[in-house]
This record gives sequence, C-alpha cells and structure tokens, in this order.
Amino acid sequence: MARPITFLSDYGYEDEFAGVCRGVIARIAPEVAVIDLSHGIERQNVRAGAIALVRALPFCPPGVHLAVVDPGVGGERRPVAVRTGRENRILVGPDNGLLALAVEAFEGAVEAVDISLSPARLEPISATFHGRDLFAPVAARLALGDPLAALGETVATESLTALELPRARIEPDHVVAHALGSDRFGNVSLNVSHEQVAASPLRLGRPLRIELASGPVEALFARTFQEVDEGKVLLYEDSARILALAVNRGSAERVLDLKPDDEVVLRPVE
Amino acid sequence: MARPITFLSDYGYEDEFAGVCRGVIARIAPEVAVIDLSHGIERQNVRAGAIALVRALPFCPPGVHLAVVDPGVGGERRPVAVRTGRENRILVGPDNGLLALAVEAFEGAVEAVDISLSPARLEPISATFHGRDLFAPVAARLALGDPLAALGETVATESLTALELPRARIEPDHVVAHALGSDRFGNVSLNVSHEQVAASPLRLGRPLRIELASGPVEALFARTFQEVDEGKVLLYEDSARILALAVNRGSAERVLDLKPDDEVVLRPVE
Amino acid sequence: MARPITFLSDYGYEDEFAGVCRGVIARIAPEVAVIDLSHGIERQNVRAGAIALVRALPFCPPGVHLAVVDPGVGGERRPVAVRTGRENRILVGPDNGLLALAVEAFEGAVEAVDISLSPARLEPISATFHGRDLFAPVAARLALGDPLAALGETVATESLTALELPRARIEPDHVVAHALGSDRFGNVSLNVSHEQVAASPLRLGRPLRIELASGPVEALFARTFQEVDEGKVLLYEDSARILALAVNRGSAERVLDLKPDDEVVLRPVE
Repeated sequence: MARPITFLSDYGYEDEFAGVCRGVIARIAPEVAVIDLSHGIERQNVRAGAIALVRALPFCPPGVHLAVVDPGVGGERRPVAVRTGRENRILVGPDNGLLALAVEAFEGAVEAVDISLSPARLEPISATFHGRDLFAPVAARLALGDPLAALGETVATESLTALELPRARIEPDHVVAHALGSDRFGNVSLNVSHEQVAASPLRLGRPLRIELASGPVEALFARTFQEVDEGKVLLYEDSARILALAVNRGSAERVLDLKPDDEVVLRPVE
Repeated sequence: MARPITFLSDYGYEDEFAGVCRGVIARIAPEVAVIDLSHGIERQNVRAGAIALVRALPFCPPGVHLAVVDPGVGGERRPVAVRTGRENRILVGPDNGLLALAVEAFEGAVEAVDISLSPARLEPISATFHGRDLFAPVAARLALGDPLAALGETVATESLTALELPRARIEPDHVVAHALGSDRFGNVSLNVSHEQVAASPLRLGRPLRIELASGPVEALFARTFQEVDEGKVLLYEDSARILALAVNRGSAERVLDLKPDDEVVLRPVE
Repeated sequence: MARPITFLSDYGYEDEFAGVCRGVIARIAPEVAVIDLSHGIERQNVRAGAIALVRALPFCPPGVHLAVVDPGVGGERRPVAVRTGRENRILVGPDNGLLALAVEAFEGAVEAVDISLSPARLEPISATFHGRDLFAPVAARLALGDPLAALGETVATESLTALELPRARIEPDHVVAHALGSDRFGNVSLNVSHEQVAASPLRLGRPLRIELASGPVEALFARTFQEVDEGKVLLYEDSARILALAVNRGSAERVLDLKPDDEVVLRPVE
C-alpha cells in the first residue's frame, strides 16, 4: 500500500520548483498523498532545514520524508535514502546533515543507499535540480513500496554526514545556551532540552537575567506569553519541548538582536 | 463519509507550522482532503483572518473549517468548535472573533463546544502550539464524522465572541466608509455592502470625490479596472460584492496611504 | 476518469485567492487532484508566468493546466481553454500570452474555446476575480471529462495571443543573449537553448567574458556551481536546458544587476 510523502525544501514560493517536484511525484505515483511541510526554509540553510524537519516528523504519519536544502547540488555530496530504526521511516535528500537530526530522533539509520545512479532518476539528469530529477522520483518509488536496495547502492550507515550543533552547559547557578534559530513570530529557540531544564537551576515561574553580548535583559520563565506584559521578554519551553525566548506580542529576535549560535546565558535571580 | 477540511492561519510559509498541522490531520484521517485557504494572514491579525474566512467559505465545500490566528494562545481565550445554522458547516479555532463573521454568514451558531480538554487533543499539549495539539486533531475527528458533543463541553452559542467592525453611514449626498484591509494587489476593501450601495447616492459610471485625511482625490465608480487610465483611482464592487478602492496597475493602499479603519468619504460629483 | 489539475497564478500567499479557487474546484470535482505549481509569480507579470509554466508542464502529468496572471481581468482579453496537439493537455486561462509558450511546447493548439459565457461559470460573475468565477469552475469540469466544446465557443487557434520574447543572435565569435528572468536563488536565465549553444562558439569548461551595460565580467562555462570559487560568476545550462548565469553561493541578479530583456554578450576567451 502506498505511503504518504512529506516534503520540505528551500525552494521558496516564487518559483515553480516545489510544484514541479510534486508534478514528478504525481506522474509516477498519482495515488500518493504529498504533505508540504514548508518550502520557505532559508535559502541553503541546511541547519534550519534539519531543525524544521526534526520538529515536524514526530507529528507526521510514518512514510517517505523528502527534504531538499542542497547548496552542494551537482558537487561531491551524496544523494541518499535512509531508513530509520524506529517506525521504518524513509528519508530522502542530500547527505549534507539535513537529514541527520531527524534520523537520530527515530533511533538512527538502519539502512542507507546512495541514489546518484538510481534507476528511478529522470534522464538527462540536470546538474542543478536534483529535487526534480532525482529526489522526487526516488521518493515516489519508495512511497509505492520499492525497497531501498532497488533504488540505490548500499552505503555504510556510519558514513552518513552528521550535523554539529553547539552544546549548552548546565552550571549550578546558570545555563550557557546558544540560539538555534527563530521562527516567523521572532521566537528564538535555544539548545536546551526539556531534560536539560530539569537538571538546571531554572524554575518555571521564576525571574531570570539573560546575559547577551549586547548586555543583560530581565525575563520570566513562564508557561504562556500572557504571563508577561506586552513587550516584555519571557523564557518558555516551546512546542518542540526545548527552551525559547519570546517577547509578548513582539519579536525576541529583533528586540534581543539574536542570530544563530549567539551565546545566551540564563541566570536565575531571586 | 469524510468531509473536507479547509485551513487558514497566520503561520506563514517560512516555518513548518502549517505543514505539521497537516501532518497531524493525515495521521488521524489520511483520507480527508485538506484545502489550504491561506497561511499568509498578517501575524496575529484576527480581523484580517476573519475577513479572509468569510470571503472564502461561501465558495468552499461545506465541511470542517479550521482557522488559527491566535495571539492569546495558552491564555484565557477558549478554543471552540461551532456548527452553523445553514449547511451544517463546522468551524474550529480560537474564540477570539476569528470565526465570527463566517458563522454569521451561515445563519449563526446552532451548537458550540469548548474543546480545551477534548479527548482528541495531543498530549502533552503545548502552551504555544494549539494548532498542532488541539485544533488540527479535533478538526480531523470532526471531518471523520465525530459529533461536536464527543469532542468538547457544550457552551451557550450566545457566549461566542463577536467581532466589531466600523459601520458605514449612508447620507443623502455622500457615504462615510472605512477601510477594512487591503490585498496583495493593494486594493483596499471598504465596509459598504452591495445592498448599502443600492441605498446610497453612488452610481456606477459616475465620477466621485474621495475625501481622505491626506486630502481629496478624484475617482470613477467603475466596473473594471480598464475603465480608468493607468495610475488612476477607481471605486468598484469587488469579488466579495463590497466596495473597494483600486489604482489601475498600481496600489491604492500605497497611493492613498490607507490603513485599516481609516475613514473614507465617498462623494458623487456631477 | 478524472484528470489532475495543475494550478499556477500570481495570487500570492497572503490572501485567500488561490485557496478559494481550490475550494471552487473541490465543490465541483472533489476527487480531482490539484497540484499547485506556484502562486508566487510576480504580480501581473504575464511573461514570468508563461516561462514558469513552460518549464513546469513537461514534468507534470498530462491533464488540465490552470494558469491565472491576468492584468486585464474584466476587460477585452478573452478567457480561453486550449487543447494541445501532443498529449491532449488542456490549458485554461486568460488569452494574453500566458499560455503561449506551453501550448507551443506541446505542438501547438488543436482546439480552443472562448469561455466568457461558459455554462460552468459562477453567477453573478465578478468583474475582478475570474480565477474563482470562471477559470476554476471550467478547469474542474474539464478535469471531470467535459469536452471543450461544451464549455465555450470555438475560436480559431490562429487567433490565440502569442508571447514575444527577445531572440538571441549566434555570431562566429560571440553570442548576443538577453536576460529572461531570475529565480529565488538569483540565477538569471538567458534566451539561449541547448540547441543554440551547440551551434555557438561557447564550449563547456572554457572561460568567457560577459559584456554588460555595466562593464565586462569574467566567468566560466561550467556544469556545476562548485567549479568556480564562492562569489565567482559562471555560465551554465540550467534545469530547463537553457543558458543561465549564476554566482556560486551568491546572486547573479544582484551581482550583475540584470533585469529582464537586458542584453548580455557572451564572448569566449582563450
């Protein structure tokens, strides 16, 4: 039975790129459902794509997960399809770290193939649009039930490219975190998980001082935005259960001038 | 039999938010069709969302209508599902006025439930992403045919939040209207309905003076944009059958510097 | 049997326009698959829409191809449905040149109807939203299998509006090309086809001088972006198999300051 395909990319919405990939899938597998996760990932930002993917997939039906953020298209990076240990999810995309966080979240890769010369590819394959000519047709065949081994050359799962993210440090009286990225609302996610919060000195409902390169800012560790006045800063556990900074009805990204990897020290005050 | 779901939000296209909600629906109700109306509603602009929704729904198949523009997420506002008197449409979203115009357009609410503690919700429910954890799963169950009463606590339909819009005044020799909002093309809709036009001194094909805070502007009450020269202002009945201002091949929003609620006096001249 | 509909427009994503058209299709033909190609075509840019359409359709399943970029809506331009000589594709949209390149790519029109008074239209038809009231319902009926002749008045295929594009000149020692447009990545496509390249003095792997209004620039005729250093200019054959200019990890549109129709002389150097 056909499985659904989720589709994430940095193709944007001004051009026909994402639509053409859907056209390719519809030709090969007209009965397969395609769920667009987002095509608005920042251009060539592999890390932003990896984070969006790992946030989304646990809520999506198991199936084929097509992801294309591919600054090295046509170069040395391998195009791959990867099967995960949990739920038999299959991820398809460039082996540049884009798939790494999601693969890890589903207990790692148990099978991987290099699809450079896949029999499913469209010929003549272009040098610059592997989404259309390679990733989409391979995803369509996988959604129809073709085994990975029929669509590429087996490669060692240990050889798959990892994605390095900064790591937070939990200290007795503060936490050294880093900005991961921000969303449309200007909320800035930090590299501190639910489990790390439990082991930290941070406590829900307590005020804290946020130390940034631009100086200190007062905030509250809150559950909802409404617990602080409009324009005030809060720390909260976001919907992916990691810490994030927000400004009620404002943009933490702008107010705090935060960019990915910026250091953010969180220090409880009494 | 499953009913389709329409989906409107301010989640934007850069993030995976709308896509994740579609993933949630696909897990629960894979056979249900989801029609994205727009996810580009201005951030937290409940009124713009309400207007887009009431313009769209009459042209969409009756079914479940999911709408999320939710600045108060996690706070006091109730999440609701509402059934309309005409066509048995079911609207799902925050009870903050977003659904009000559409509910009214289908002869009002005949049944409403508070879905805060719906058995369909995803646990642990996040404080900030009710689209994913609450509204989408409830919409999916409703599309599969679950009755409202099985998904929430009944509330009085009179307790649903209304949306207050400015009202136009029809005078013997002029009309005092207000800007409702503008679209991608810069066309500015006004709060004057087809019926109100019929009762006004405005006549199709006749010139008029538009009095704005920034001064008067000449215009024509036309049927199509081509009836005025490029760059000239026209008044017309738009596709929702309300009055709107446009500039042929230009932007009335920019040329006339109009913002929502701005007063616009329309005065016929001979 | 129902055929899929592809859908391209300049309706954008902020408004509900494209979504409403999908709602109209879902009411008439709930079982028909709709593939959004893009709704982000530059506002009223018929040529950009025509180019996106002809790039996309060869990769999409044959069916009904709805396209709406329509600055003359409500005016003299005809709304049409056109059947192509190859693959029986049916294009639906305004007869303003938008469909011309795609029709030509499928061996031209063999049947065309003016759908102004189509029995499928929604009444009262608006003067400004033919996507909703005319094109979408006609496309839905066509996807269900209605013949063209049942949906409009036959017109001579020779009367369909063409789209004039600048033509490149292939000289013994250089090529005079023109910019067609640019994509989200800032890559600028030129009006030189794969076949024209073969007949030109340009050779893959060879350096060339690009002569622009703003002065000359050095570049390489390469297959992939990685063949030049970051920030350097390359000429390449893009995924539509026409020449294009790019800057590795940059934007050729910005770096070279190119606008549509700008002349670009490509001169091989030894």
